[in-house]
Amino acid sequence: MKRTTSAAEVLLAVTRKSGRSMREQLEHGLRSAIQAGRLAPGFALPSTRSLAADLGVSRGVAVLAYEQLLAEGYLTSVMGSATRVATVPRGGSHQAPPIVAARPPAYDFRPGAPDVSIFPRRAWLSSVRRVLAGAPHAALAYPDPAGAVELRTALSLYLNRTRGTLARGDAIVVCNGFAQGLRLVCEVLIQRGIRSIAVENPGHAGQRADIESVGIRTRAVEVDAEGMRIDRLRGSDVGAVLLTPAHQFPTGVVLSPDRRKALLDWASHRGAWIIEDDYDAEYRYDRGPVGALQGLAPDRVIYLGSASKTLAPALRLGWILAPPELVDRLALAKLHADHGSPTLDQLAFADFIERRGLDRHLRKARLLYRRRRDAMVAALRAHLPSLNIEGVAAGLHLMVTLPSGTSEEAVMDAAARRSMRIYGVGPHRKTPGAPALLLGYGSMTEAQIEEGMAMLARIIKSGRSGAAKPGGRRSTVWDPIERALTDRILASKS
Amino acid sequence: MKRTTSAAEVLLAVTRKSGRSMREQLEHGLRSAIQAGRLAPGFALPSTRSLAADLGVSRGVAVLAYEQLLAEGYLTSVMGSATRVATVPRGGSHQAPPIVAARPPAYDFRPGAPDVSIFPRRAWLSSVRRVLAGAPHAALAYPDPAGAVELRTALSLYLNRTRGTLARGDAIVVCNGFAQGLRLVCEVLIQRGIRSIAVENPGHAGQRADIESVGIRTRAVEVDAEGMRIDRLRGSDVGAVLLTPAHQFPTGVVLSPDRRKALLDWASHRGAWIIEDDYDAEYRYDRGPVGALQGLAPDRVIYLGSASKTLAPALRLGWILAPPELVDRLALAKLHADHGSPTLDQLAFADFIERRGLDRHLRKARLLYRRRRDAMVAALRAHLPSLNIEGVAAGLHLMVTLPSGTSEEAVMDAAARRSMRIYGVGPHRKTPGAPALLLGYGSMTEAQIEEGMAMLARIIKSGRSGAAKPGGRRSTVWDPIERALTDRILASKS
Repeated sequence: MKRTTSAAEVLLAVTRKSGRSMREQLEHGLRSAIQAGRLAPGFALPSTRSLAADLGVSRGVAVLAYEQLLAEGYLTSVMGSATRVATVPRGGSHQAPPIVAARPPAYDFRPGAPDVSIFPRRAWLSSVRRVLAGAPHAALAYPDPAGAVELRTALSLYLNRTRGTLARGDAIVVCNGFAQGLRLVCEVLIQRGIRSIAVENPGHAGQRADIESVGIRTRAVEVDAEGMRIDRLRGSDVGAVLLTPAHQFPTGVVLSPDRRKALLDWASHRGAWIIEDDYDAEYRYDRGPVGALQGLAPDRVIYLGSASKTLAPALRLGWILAPPELVDRLALAKLHADHGSPTLDQLAFADFIERRGLDRHLRKARLLYRRRRDAMVAALRAHLPSLNIEGVAAGLHLMVTLPSGTSEEAVMDAAARRSMRIYGVGPHRKTPGAPALLLGYGSMTEAQIEEGMAMLARIIKSGRSGAAKPGGRRSTVWDPIERALTDRILASKS
Repeated sequence: MKRTTSAAEVLLAVTRKSGRSMREQLEHGLRSAIQAGRLAPGFALPSTRSLAADLGVSRGVAVLAYEQLLAEGYLTSVMGSATRVATVPRGGSHQAPPIVAARPPAYDFRPGAPDVSIFPRRAWLSSVRRVLAGAPHAALAYPDPAGAVELRTALSLYLNRTRGTLARGDAIVVCNGFAQGLRLVCEVLIQRGIRSIAVENPGHAGQRADIESVGIRTRAVEVDAEGMRIDRLRGSDVGAVLLTPAHQFPTGVVLSPDRRKALLDWASHRGAWIIEDDYDAEYRYDRGPVGALQGLAPDRVIYLGSASKTLAPALRLGWILAPPELVDRLALAKLHADHGSPTLDQLAFADFIERRGLDRHLRKARLLYRRRRDAMVAALRAHLPSLNIEGVAAGLHLMVTLPSGTSEEAVMDAAARRSMRIYGVGPHRKTPGAPALLLGYGSMTEAQIEEGMAMLARIIKSGRSGAAKPGGRRSTVWDPIERALTDRILASKS
């Protein structure tokens, strides 16, 4: 009969049918596992009593096997402590090299990045503690693919109050951040026969790519000082339009009241869907609030939001507030994508919202970001007074137009050599336009902002920023993580 | 100048340009928000001091507006406490009706469902606490799409030790449960030109559907007492094969040593990929361990696992252990799917594994499930002695073949009327076969198992289980959550 470690802390097997003794088999099994690296240096082995019981051998057999391997140097033992795998240097580390750079740049002006150092860790832990103490066991089984009832309800109340939406909890589908939400929406729109979607130009490069990756064409529609040119939608074949009405990305303009009306009229007349990206509406400094479009046309608008900019991107918490006829289809798409979002996180977030934790956090965050915004505007006026600054009234970034003839890529490259990451508008344009930079101030201190903008001014004034890379194709990948990964895949091919 | 609640706890705006007084505007704004349901009953309004400061009006204006709405019954006030929106009954609840049935059946023999009531809540909370106390701020920013280094390392050590894999942390991509992992693998295999994948028959219905939903054909390959018929792969055009070597789903057979060898030879010769679903390998009771195939051919095998059966499905934690040449592509697919899994959960899980929390939990869980397995076998032998039982040596379910002529659907329907959910093999067969049931014992107590099997015997012996629904198409949807959602979508169309 073959006996094994039923505890399964270590995969080993011995059998009485073998010609070799149980002790030999056990020694051989342990030695091979250590040699192969399956048992890592420092690993604490089960006690000889426990191992012997698991394998159905006498304890003496296990003791002898451990002693032999101790003698051979595979194991080490300290009096009164567990027997461990010896920490001799071996080839091959198990540590995974991170894809995100281990040493981030000293300055990173990523647009839309919040300051994660103010994440309310203590309040979040309290919410997790309450959830683990109080949630019914069913909360640990397979989740409702649309999301936990508690979070859907808390979000509907929060959004109605702060964003002017008209939402019931049953119209919300919880997802893993904005990106997954947009993909689920696209999958459902394809089922409904939609083959092309209008997007803003300039508009978010990643979103354009995400839409196209599921097989939907995008039609770029010009953005001017009043937002998207809604008149350009007439006569087009698009079945939906994706836009950022409260704070256009990347320009920062607000969709004007006339355009809002024209958009709703067009969508109602055409039976088209409006996909509203309300990505940083919580941050506005010196202008009136712009309520969500969803509140004006809850049957036409698919509203998307996330906690990435209000709390932390690492939470991967997002939501779709959908017209009633799309909710179940979105939930089914979510089921097929990943069976639903992690429940404990959802319940913790619901508790956090209900206890006004998000209100409190945002009150603090707004003051911080307003000061940083002011610092950035002041630094730009001091060091680069001739540049035009846009989109300062809200959000976590602003846009500066570079002198014509400047190459965004050259400025970015020169900055990178000084450990500073800045972002060009280029990838977000579907058609070429004036060179410009997106400068995020959310995650940089006022001192870093002043230093960074002074450095930027030196780069631009040095005159070495005019040389576009010869033959360089305009990149449409703006995210440094995606760029690093894509570069690595390309390099492995060659 | 237009002034607004900068605190943004309530979306309101007043302007001096209006013909109406500030007090009237504020009253009107609050009244409308309450009428529209945007401010929910019980919501605690900001203090008049805070609201007045936010709007740039005198505090007296805010006091008068609150008093007017108190008089009208829109607000309520208790001495020493915040002013709140009155809790008058209004149309329309914000509570989302759950898609998962609010009242689960009294007995649910779902195959593969673990007992979530033994989830180690205290140890998990300790891990979350350590993570929130110690993780660097960068852990809260956008995640590494491949997963947190800490978890990838912990998983590689754990899998090497317990499953006999040969993994380095950098070969692991963390995902949201098994389902997302399989989808990511399929997306990458499509990029590599693979158009069809062999699957087991019977085999998991949901996985077959998931593969087909991304545009890959499935080829059903018969399973016999030694597992998948590897000889049937020769001459086929498949570029990959998905199988459950350690514990075949649903039959419970183990892929025999000869078949393992034949499979590896075939894959190596054809340059094909093996997708290894190691779904419940941690649970085995009276047979030897079956190491993962991955340890024999780390360059050919894509290994998938999850915490759904070892800890809790609600965690949505899964992993892909991939050949080196696929890792970056899988990470990129994950980036496009949802930008990465939630970081705090990953770090908590890494801490939990490193502190041997998973080892301890599994030691306890194995004893529990073995007793339940014994109880189910005993109950079946007592109440339905003539039925053939298979797949008892491992896992969280077993399979019983029903008398020929019995309809799985009729038995399931009769059980459902007695608040008992059981599962037919039917959806998992690509071609018709003998009627059989999958009986999961993981989440039911020994008493529930005895009662449930006695009830099942009465149903089968009553003779009312032979009538298949007239004209009923064989369903390929086995998951009750998916069924409920699909039924609701179909009902809304008619």
